Amino acid sequence: MSNKIFQDHYPDDLSHCYGCGRLNEHGLQLKSYWEGEESVAIYTPEEYHIAVPGYVYGGLLASLVDCHGTGTASAAAYREEGREIGSEPNLRFVTASLHVDFLRPTPLGGPLEVRGKVAEVKGRKVVVDITIAAEGEVCVKGEVIAVQIPAEMMS
Amino acid sequence: MSNKIFQDHYPDDLSHCYGCGRLNEHGLQLKSYWEGEESVAIYTPEEYHIAVPGYVYGGLLASLVDCHGTGTASAAAYREEGREIGSEPNLRFVTASLHVDFLRPTPLGGPLEVRGKVAEVKGRKVVVDITIAAEGEVCVKGEVIAVQIPAEMMS
Repeated sequence: MSNKIFQDHYPDDLSHCYGCGRLNEHGLQLKSYWEGEESVAIYTPEEYHIAVPGYVYGGLLASLVDCHGTGTASAAAYREEGREIGSEPNLRFVTASLHVDFLRPTPLGGPLEVRGKVAEVKGRKVVVDITIAAEGEVCVKGEVIAVQIPAEMMS
Repeated sequence: MSNKIFQDHYPDDLSHCYGCGRLNEHGLQLKSYWEGEESVAIYTPEEYHIAVPGYVYGGLLASLVDCHGTGTASAAAYREEGREIGSEPNLRFVTASLHVDFLRPTPLGGPLEVRGKVAEVKGRKVVVDITIAAEGEVCVKGEVIAVQIPAEMMS
């Protein structure tokens, strides 16, 4: 665990997510953090995260957009309130809507740089714009509309 | 392999996809088929495909939308040409754009029914509208804009 990693501050019962939960041993365990005004996560796909030979599977890229988006939303909401990430009451987000444009095939083999910019923080909703770059070139653009986790998911 | 399954007709070199490739032993191996005018796939998530306890991970749902969309696009393109699925020249699609609305949390534990409707077939582009239902209730709506696989991905 690292102090700067958004997901490392999620409480244990919200740390099972396949995409970013530190307690999901089968999952991707995405790690997101601030770099100035933008959020960043570096993820290197496994060789089986393939679409066609040589290229990354789109559903994995959508998963990175999704979890980096909700993680950034949570961090942005804490920042908006001037509170430390992870302090109570917990501000954890889920995805209401996900949009992903695959601008070009994403080469498989090296690390991907996922970057987020907070476009809007309004009440329980945060909108995050995401890019994914490989070898310095943006291959994917996405948008996550994240909302604070509904009470029904917390029971 | 089954004659009715779209993905079982993909040529071997295009059957490694993490979401639907029959040759990807780590993958989801989604199987889609026609049921009248709609396409259907049934997928039961693993217990580790979790978002928060009790609910399915959104990135997995996006992956199901993605692969059911491209599979349906391929089948629709063959149908448009009046050809058998898998006949040469091959009509294989990739996702240009993916949109997913998470209408309500998707319960984890049972089978999900993924359904597709072809909204548009135009040149190299096919648009597919998707729903995912759990326990008879639609939890996810999605749209896939699929395009015939670009030559650069086939080398």
